[in-house]
Amino acid sequence: MPADAATRDQQQPGHGTKPFRVALISTGGTIEKTYDELGGVLANRVNVLDLLLASLDLHGVVIDRVPLMNKDSLDMSEADHDLIADTAELMARNHDGVVVVHGTDRLSKTGDRIHERLAAKGGATRAIVLTGAMRPFEMKRTDAAQNVTEALLAVQILPVGVYVAMHNRVLRFPGVVKDRALGTFVRAAT
Amino acid sequence: MPADAATRDQQQPGHGTKPFRVALISTGGTIEKTYDELGGVLANRVNVLDLLLASLDLHGVVIDRVPLMNKDSLDMSEADHDLIADTAELMARNHDGVVVVHGTDRLSKTGDRIHERLAAKGGATRAIVLTGAMRPFEMKRTDAAQNVTEALLAVQILPVGVYVAMHNRVLRFPGVVKDRALGTFVRAAT
Amino acid sequence: MPADAATRDQQQPGHGTKPFRVALISTGGTIEKTYDELGGVLANRVNVLDLLLASLDLHGVVIDRVPLMNKDSLDMSEADHDLIADTAELMARNHDGVVVVHGTDRLSKTGDRIHERLAAKGGATRAIVLTGAMRPFEMKRTDAAQNVTEALLAVQILPVGVYVAMHNRVLRFPGVVKDRALGTFVRAAT
Amino acid sequence: MPADAATRDQQQPGHGTKPFRVALISTGGTIEKTYDELGGVLANRVNVLDLLLASLDLHGVVIDRVPLMNKDSLDMSEADHDLIADTAELMARNHDGVVVVHGTDRLSKTGDRIHERLAAKGGATRAIVLTGAMRPFEMKRTDAAQNVTEALLAVQILPVGVYVAMHNRVLRFPGVVKDRALGTFVRAAT
Repeated sequence: MPADAATRDQQQPGHGTKPFRVALISTGGTIEKTYDELGGVLANRVNVLDLLLASLDLHGVVIDRVPLMNKDSLDMSEADHDLIADTAELMARNHDGVVVVHGTDRLSKTGDRIHERLAAKGGATRAIVLTGAMRPFEMKRTDAAQNVTEALLAVQILPVGVYVAMHNRVLRFPGVVKDRALGTFVRAAT
Repeated sequence: MPADAATRDQQQPGHGTKPFRVALISTGGTIEKTYDELGGVLANRVNVLDLLLASLDLHGVVIDRVPLMNKDSLDMSEADHDLIADTAELMARNHDGVVVVHGTDRLSKTGDRIHERLAAKGGATRAIVLTGAMRPFEMKRTDAAQNVTEALLAVQILPVGVYVAMHNRVLRFPGVVKDRALGTFVRAAT
Repeated sequence: MPADAATRDQQQPGHGTKPFRVALISTGGTIEKTYDELGGVLANRVNVLDLLLASLDLHGVVIDRVPLMNKDSLDMSEADHDLIADTAELMARNHDGVVVVHGTDRLSKTGDRIHERLAAKGGATRAIVLTGAMRPFEMKRTDAAQNVTEALLAVQILPVGVYVAMHNRVLRFPGVVKDRALGTFVRAAT
Repeated sequence: MPADAATRDQQQPGHGTKPFRVALISTGGTIEKTYDELGGVLANRVNVLDLLLASLDLHGVVIDRVPLMNKDSLDMSEADHDLIADTAELMARNHDGVVVVHGTDRLSKTGDRIHERLAAKGGATRAIVLTGAMRPFEMKRTDAAQNVTEALLAVQILPVGVYVAMHNRVLRFPGVVKDRALGTFVRAAT
């Protein structure tokens, strides 16, 4: 058993009774886009993640919300990716796990950056799970609630590491890319 | 590493590229109850699980549907619990994991029975995850889609064993009971 | 033009600019049934009509809510039907129109009673529109919002009289019956 | 009673038993906008009005669908407004009523044009009801189903003339304008 897994012993499924403490870092993306009636467009202006969370029954986790930014990830600068990675690393120190809600277009870039940062410091000590959505939570048909549900469950039961959880699939960084034709994440061809 | 974990190596998150093959055994329960306009009551008559699955984006799993029965679990006989346990064991032999959709009132009884049966044969060889719902899928507010999402994700990443996944919490059998006041599953007081 | 229509002149569509004042009398029925998680049944206990109204954009009416009772109409006594008819007549005196939300099984009986009462006093002076639903508002598929929308619009533009508005059809009392096979109201065969 | 009302006698609410025949002319607008996952924008490309109609219980009307165009009304040319007015007039000849689904930004312009055209020919012979929506039908919160419900009911019970039905208010052309701050239609200040 690797050393860093030892820290998760008390959270093993079926053993602990303390709630699992998650930092939920939100950065924007399609999942949080809302409809602007005046302009007739979808934009990242209001935070809808709290509505999404209120629609779920969450008995396994206690969530600390960290609303970091609200951006279409195509508009993220290098400094934005750094800020998210720094925040994820920081939150992993005093939580049992970290979830990052992110636009899908640059999600892989942030995932890789978190992975590199943690690798340079001796590896992850918690599970850090990124997720997003292809259709805004405000739409009738949306993958937003499903994907956040998956990330919040996966972060409790995955081994330490950096992952994307979306569309009922979990993939470990590095080596994850968005397949634009499929509209989901896949393992990069090697 | 325990011996039975070895069988899951090719499905470790982030390593495999083959889809994960799940047997989804449905037995009824609140989750599948539909509204009968003539009688004005909720009953287990029509199968709504296919509608629920169609509402999800499932890129990680291939699902074989096994519609075993459609009962309120309060109406289950000992023979019903046996039949479900036998079917779960059978399906575990030729699938990567098994999900059982079940009424919550007797879910623990079926979970214990599957656990006992597998223990008598040397332990589980796959993750077997039970789930259900407190509110029917046909209601606007329902935990059905959330819980099935969780079960389908958990079965891919949990170690071998028998579990309930519901309300963003995973608990391992034996020792799981329904807390009627909370309306969810908890670890039994010891 | 009949004499009693004169009172509606200032509310004619396209002429008035004052909001139309509606008394909304709620009596229960399927439309207001909610799901009891402990008992696993649908019952008339909590009032959901306010949630339904909040989901609509209502710029044409000002609504005074009159929550009279919350009963399955199969459980209504003669005194209940009288009470509803008396209340409708009373509310018609100081409102521009009256809407009655009612269980469909005995809706015709209440409609006939309101009609008889008003006929005995020289005829209706306002439009009084009854409505209900075949499926509770809490279900994903429900006719509740549609039917209340129709009643609130119809009451503004119908001539004085007693009506049911449901499933995009308006029928005038007397001579209205529920067709149980169709699950809607029809004109009684003569 | 005005002469043109006589034509509606057989459709008076509560008297006729034949279904009311409506021509439903769709021209696009926000109500029909759908989400394009690749581009991440809302656009008028696919027709969603059939989904909307399928979600309603319509026992009072028989609908002939006339999918004329699918445009944001800001993009409509003079020829487009003429085409819609011509089509509405044509459909009024062999239907009991006409509903026009239209973008809200130029809805008043089309309503005025239909009114002028009919006035030049001696006045309307049917009720012609325009409607639209401020939020696309694909959103969780949308006024689309409510407004179409209202238009389909209003067309059955209004006197002959040209109207907008939206947000539980009916206004008669001419003299109707969109109030952009309120996000709804109002009678023009005189």
